[in-house]
Amino acid sequence: MLNKTDWILDPSSCPGFLKAEKIAHVEKSGQVHHTEHLHLKIPKRYGLVHITPLVEEIIDRSGVHDGFCFVSAMHITAGIYVNDAESGLLEDISKWIENLAPFGENYKHHQSGEDNGDAHLKSFLTNHALTAPITNGRLDFGTWQRIFYAEYDGLRAKRILVKVAGLAP
Amino acid sequence: MLNKTDWILDPSSCPGFLKAEKIAHVEKSGQVHHTEHLHLKIPKRYGLVHITPLVEEIIDRSGVHDGFCFVSAMHITAGIYVNDAESGLLEDISKWIENLAPFGENYKHHQSGEDNGDAHLKSFLTNHALTAPITNGRLDFGTWQRIFYAEYDGLRAKRILVKVAGLAP
Amino acid sequence: MLNKTDWILDPSSCPGFLKAEKIAHVEKSGQVHHTEHLHLKIPKRYGLVHITPLVEEIIDRSGVHDGFCFVSAMHITAGIYVNDAESGLLEDISKWIENLAPFGENYKHHQSGEDNGDAHLKSFLTNHALTAPITNGRLDFGTWQRIFYAEYDGLRAKRILVKVAGLAP
Repeated sequence: MLNKTDWILDPSSCPGFLKAEKIAHVEKSGQVHHTEHLHLKIPKRYGLVHITPLVEEIIDRSGVHDGFCFVSAMHITAGIYVNDAESGLLEDISKWIENLAPFGENYKHHQSGEDNGDAHLKSFLTNHALTAPITNGRLDFGTWQRIFYAEYDGLRAKRILVKVAGLAP
Repeated sequence: MLNKTDWILDPSSCPGFLKAEKIAHVEKSGQVHHTEHLHLKIPKRYGLVHITPLVEEIIDRSGVHDGFCFVSAMHITAGIYVNDAESGLLEDISKWIENLAPFGENYKHHQSGEDNGDAHLKSFLTNHALTAPITNGRLDFGTWQRIFYAEYDGLRAKRILVKVAGLAP
Repeated sequence: MLNKTDWILDPSSCPGFLKAEKIAHVEKSGQVHHTEHLHLKIPKRYGLVHITPLVEEIIDRSGVHDGFCFVSAMHITAGIYVNDAESGLLEDISKWIENLAPFGENYKHHQSGEDNGDAHLKSFLTNHALTAPITNGRLDFGTWQRIFYAEYDGLRAKRILVKVAGLAP
């Protein structure tokens, strides 16, 4: 049975992170576009893991001083969201998602041989991507805003796209 | 009564697509901004229809090599989302949306003469807009990511805004 | 007890708006990036309030002719969304959010001394941020699209970030 122990809830890091891969870096007339893919393999089926530091490293490497950072799961069984990194809250969020889009229902999608219909629905609740603002070379966030990766079908290789675009200093 | 036959579920095309209208094209110092409106009239009240090819054509016409493609329903009774184009999953998604934001409830909005209160709520579940990354002139998507238009109050003329912004080659 | 009177539902203005603070304005090769923080203190715990005019004023001050306007709550107990400004609908939306993410449950987050676990979950339903398109110096919106701020833990000072980025005329 699916229970809370099937979720990795990590308010401070991203278990299963493998590497950052540089995809493209383009500069033109003071505009910088920098793209990397984060490779990861979450060691449980479900997870909510903190990725703000990984994103901030990419912003540093981009050299963008003012602009946007776009972060997207490259899969349709995962999500990216902004919320608080309090550990009790992570448990609340995981239960809320599981309750609204439960595992193990008789989804039509399973007739295609899959068993992850719930993962597709869960991704609507967190959204699969977000945009974050960059001002003075840093995330222009409020005190408690943190970026999380939500895994709904883990134990396999996944990627997160991060594209930073904006003005050089 | 509302039932699944009221939904058009099309994993490969957009029934009711009418035309793409060019709204604006601006270039400055190697930056390109290109905007089109897609006109459509979905032939049922509800629908989940595949629009990735329509978006890709606009990216091609924009000439943007690296940047973002913003896709938005211009109505508050429709949505835009990224997920898999598997036909069973489309049915799962339609039932999940209908269950969480059902048609025919006694919504206060109906006192204004409307009967589409459910459509407004449904739009929160899918979101009404999304941003997609463009790298090397193409959508920088994972294997199964596809863009869908979600119609929650069809049988009437609607528009989707697509704005492509980024660096020329 | 929480009831509908605890919600401020304002389809035409933002009660509790305090001031707009200019954070940054950068121009380079015809690209303009302009950032402001809106300060507000919603006078009830919950609220759905109309902020399109406040956003439009910032777009005017930015001088951007074609581009994007990014609007984000800087808190993880609030949201930003686009929908209709019909007053009955605001009541429907508030009830729908309360029903799917109820106040007063036995959330684990409350063991940290907080009582706003519901607010964190509510923010997933509306999302916490949005991107809006700007064409010819104005929001490129459909007839009924309006920007709302959703407060889920009010009676305290909050901020909304607005970053406008794009091409000068």
